[in-house]
Amino acid sequence: MSDSSSVTTGSASPARAAQKSAVVLLSGGLDSATVLAMAIAEGYQCDCLSFDYGQRHATELQFASDLAVALGARTHRVVSIDLGSFGGSALTDMDIAVPTDDPGGIPVTYVPARNTVFLSYALALAEVTGAMDIFIGVNAVDYSGYPDCRPEFISAFETMANLATRVGVEGHRLTVHSPLIDLTKAEIIRRGVSLGVDYSQTVSCYQLGTDGSACGECDSCRIRKQGFMDAKVQDPTLYR
Amino acid sequence: MSDSSSVTTGSASPARAAQKSAVVLLSGGLDSATVLAMAIAEGYQCDCLSFDYGQRHATELQFASDLAVALGARTHRVVSIDLGSFGGSALTDMDIAVPTDDPGGIPVTYVPARNTVFLSYALALAEVTGAMDIFIGVNAVDYSGYPDCRPEFISAFETMANLATRVGVEGHRLTVHSPLIDLTKAEIIRRGVSLGVDYSQTVSCYQLGTDGSACGECDSCRIRKQGFMDAKVQDPTLYR
Repeated sequence: MSDSSSVTTGSASPARAAQKSAVVLLSGGLDSATVLAMAIAEGYQCDCLSFDYGQRHATELQFASDLAVALGARTHRVVSIDLGSFGGSALTDMDIAVPTDDPGGIPVTYVPARNTVFLSYALALAEVTGAMDIFIGVNAVDYSGYPDCRPEFISAFETMANLATRVGVEGHRLTVHSPLIDLTKAEIIRRGVSLGVDYSQTVSCYQLGTDGSACGECDSCRIRKQGFMDAKVQDPTLYR
Repeated sequence: MSDSSSVTTGSASPARAAQKSAVVLLSGGLDSATVLAMAIAEGYQCDCLSFDYGQRHATELQFASDLAVALGARTHRVVSIDLGSFGGSALTDMDIAVPTDDPGGIPVTYVPARNTVFLSYALALAEVTGAMDIFIGVNAVDYSGYPDCRPEFISAFETMANLATRVGVEGHRLTVHSPLIDLTKAEIIRRGVSLGVDYSQTVSCYQLGTDGSACGECDSCRIRKQGFMDAKVQDPTLYR
């Protein structure tokens, strides 16, 4: 992926201009790849959005970029966000010091209010493209500890979104789709396989190698491995 | 303002560590300066947040930075956001082309889903600092055309925010304060003057000079001028 280069996918042809469009949050992981395939299968022209928040970005964002093209997205944007500076680990863009009683010990990988921020950007893009649909691959099964992976959060965001922008006020209805929210990893994998997702193009590992290889041992790798086993689908992941 | 420099204000002393804290959205304008003064008057230690989204930033953010120090904020952060790339005017960070049927003509200054994005960052910072209060200077009088300046939007954001983060789930209640929402410009100015806000340190002009001087003619200048007249307060703005 190159931030400044431009590649037009075949699906952006004028003949499909009247097709409904959606904004899809795409991380390069297994879940969001499946969501993108689902949205495309439902007939949406998909404008994908990934975030560069300072970690693992080169490799992970390359997966996202390749997936967007492979699955037939209309566009893919990478937005840089510097939420990392809030976590006490990369204190940039400040002109008054953070007090020393700030909470410490927050890992670099931590993204505060993560799904709220991601969905807000999706809403901003939807406002520009005219999309009435946003897709996000949150899952309440694997991530039960995260408040912003629950159906009630998604529903509250949708309500807020419809009050935030002109489309909602004008009587249209913006929908936030979270089609994986109640699925197990095995169900997600089976769904993706049926839609032709090549999971070797997706990445889950927290300790991804620069060559794209997965460690096979971190929490995320173990959930993924188990998912393929439970789904009785051969795991195409490149483990090192 | 220098993004990398650090200045500690007097109010960050350990003696006030037990004081309640708030995140305050600060633009460098008249409204948010008043809100910051109100939050400080209510006893909050204030962590301010400004956004650099590519327009007028050097001068406007300098006003925000100076205001944060002058009014006694605890910290001030400037977060860079590249929402501008959504508007079709500064197409950076893309690796598939935007289709040619994208809506055009959106001005550079337009920020889609603006208050949703700003409040999401405020929520992220609140999650890190432990603040249970967010202040935003939205006003439904001057900006009646904007859906995200209405009380029902603020209320829906607050509901969503309490479902999005651990604090809300744990039974605490995060509050989004918009104390100016029903005030006229004159009422805002009178309130700020009573709290000691020096409005010469604030900026409203859409065509601000590099020396900080205002044009006196744009919509924003005219609303501001009228506000000082109605409030019967001498207008300290530097007009060119």
